[in-house]
Amino acid sequence: MKADITTKVNGVDTERLVETVRAVKATPELGRFTFQVTNRWMDGAENRSETRRFRGQGETLSHKTTLQLMADEPEVLLGRDTAANPVEHLLHALASCVTTSIVYHAAAKGIAIEHIESSLEADLDLQGFLGLDPAVRNGCQQIRLKLRINANVSDEQLQELSKLGPAFSPVFDSIRQGVPISILAERIP
Amino acid sequence: MKADITTKVNGVDTERLVETVRAVKATPELGRFTFQVTNRWMDGAENRSETRRFRGQGETLSHKTTLQLMADEPEVLLGRDTAANPVEHLLHALASCVTTSIVYHAAAKGIAIEHIESSLEADLDLQGFLGLDPAVRNGCQQIRLKLRINANVSDEQLQELSKLGPAFSPVFDSIRQGVPISILAERIP
Repeated sequence: MKADITTKVNGVDTERLVETVRAVKATPELGRFTFQVTNRWMDGAENRSETRRFRGQGETLSHKTTLQLMADEPEVLLGRDTAANPVEHLLHALASCVTTSIVYHAAAKGIAIEHIESSLEADLDLQGFLGLDPAVRNGCQQIRLKLRINANVSDEQLQELSKLGPAFSPVFDSIRQGVPISILAERIP
Repeated sequence: MKADITTKVNGVDTERLVETVRAVKATPELGRFTFQVTNRWMDGAENRSETRRFRGQGETLSHKTTLQLMADEPEVLLGRDTAANPVEHLLHALASCVTTSIVYHAAAKGIAIEHIESSLEADLDLQGFLGLDPAVRNGCQQIRLKLRINANVSDEQLQELSKLGPAFSPVFDSIRQGVPISILAERIP
């Protein structure tokens, strides 16, 4: 059981979780976060993102270190296959957010989880990316998310647990419903 | 100039790019890809994805190695801050896909690019994730994408170049328009 005697359930400090809920309830501005990354093209399909700062709780905050993320394409898509490709990163964002949402919301309910794993698939038709058929979308046509959970709960409670991810995950909602994206382009002086 | 004498423009093999376009045009099934990741929860906000196989060109293909992706949350969000969080991964997926889309489509047009960098921000209101206000969405409210490009083209052509990303990027379209997500949950036996 991933719970210790004091305040952690599923590795989540539930006292701090309750405090966070209370603070955001009292002062909604504290709940506004802005995450950011900067990305630099290397060559071909290779590029690299860094994330260091973000805004939250009314101030600018920093990760403990600068975190680096790489991207590439497999050779069949003309890359050098040195890193996951953008669609795989999208699936990782979704998987990680759904999992963390289940873990945190279960912790808030005092439900200890033993194990969560998931497998995700995204279908894509290159006719969109290549501009060959305007009837084919560029984006993913369908994502399939399969969750496997182990916890000492009834089958019904297990289904409830699995729904906490889709019900609360920010990335699930972002990908499911879409997000407005504003674009600005300028020349490097 | 990231172009060599033979067939590479922006590090992309343009002969193979033309061949790929021709093949998908002749046999649209060859353009259908399915990307996949598996994810496993570690503890708290920490989880890990792996990607090894994908389907494309009518067969099951493999990356050269199993690629690992990590996720965590910063301490202020009750994590241990060992890796980028899910929203930052979402922004990396978007940045990397928009950049690669510009690079490939510019290569197809024979336009050599010197440099691309981008900065991305996503606004999120924790009132959604915490279930405090049903009027606040769980997902990102807005994403801002700032592109900075250097290429030996006119200002007008530079704006055209920057539009190739949003026009063709699968991840841009996925996040902008949303993707249907099917969910299956089961107990680990």
